[in-house]
Amino acid sequence: MKSQENQQPNVKFMVAALHEAKKALMKDEVPVGAVVVHEGKIIARAHNLREQKQSFHAHAEFLAMLKASQKIGSWRLEDCDVYVTLEPCPMCAGAMIQARVKNLYYATKDTKAGGVDSVVKLLDIPFNHQIHVESGMMEQESKSLIQSFFKKLREKK
Amino acid sequence: MKSQENQQPNVKFMVAALHEAKKALMKDEVPVGAVVVHEGKIIARAHNLREQKQSFHAHAEFLAMLKASQKIGSWRLEDCDVYVTLEPCPMCAGAMIQARVKNLYYATKDTKAGGVDSVVKLLDIPFNHQIHVESGMMEQESKSLIQSFFKKLREKK
Repeated sequence: MKSQENQQPNVKFMVAALHEAKKALMKDEVPVGAVVVHEGKIIARAHNLREQKQSFHAHAEFLAMLKASQKIGSWRLEDCDVYVTLEPCPMCAGAMIQARVKNLYYATKDTKAGGVDSVVKLLDIPFNHQIHVESGMMEQESKSLIQSFFKKLREKK
Repeated sequence: MKSQENQQPNVKFMVAALHEAKKALMKDEVPVGAVVVHEGKIIARAHNLREQKQSFHAHAEFLAMLKASQKIGSWRLEDCDVYVTLEPCPMCAGAMIQARVKNLYYATKDTKAGGVDSVVKLLDIPFNHQIHVESGMMEQESKSLIQSFFKKLREKK
């Protein structure tokens, strides 16, 4: 059992990830946000920019990991935790294996395309690196944000 | 059954991917190369640059797809084929789903980390996009290149 003291920072970091998700919403992007935490501090923040960047890889957690990698100056993010508001897709979960991320915390499931729990459990497969995963922190807030985005999109059509 | 005429261009493109792999070898990177083909022409070429770039995403096919995406000006690589000398890892196979790549041709299996046939069959899972996969073209050439790289690496140690 983790103590309350240990859990406290987690929520703060997911709030920061949600803040990033809201930035994506303002740009008419699917509202997903992420932060990378190293030694108790946020070293990278990003939000989904797929449409703006017109690049398949511009998911929130992928961009945050790229920034973190640049900051650290290494492809290894071994002592880093990723906080992301939506369950990572297989590309992003696979990137976490490549980068040897330590812990993954995500808020809400992606039932259609999730690569961690929903469609495929990529991080349960015995690759050369294993990542500890927890989900459900600030689930409702993240889910509501995404649902309101898609509701608005349907109304526009 | 495909006619010989249809198969002919395939080999040419894998030769180009192998040429890229050799460039990686010259830079002391794991020798993997890739090209992206659109309307019968190579629109992007790349080789593994993980150590040089110190970035977890700098796999040959990932970099080639990023270049192709920039060239086309879209995250959608719907009419594109990827030729790569080694079986893609889950990150790269997941990126192909994200980018909606049409066909994937790879030369040799990655028995330890392959995300298409070896460790997990990511492209067999019913995601929102399906990719046609063929493997084995120039398998020996690709395998020899990778084996000689690791042999040299062991000798150095």
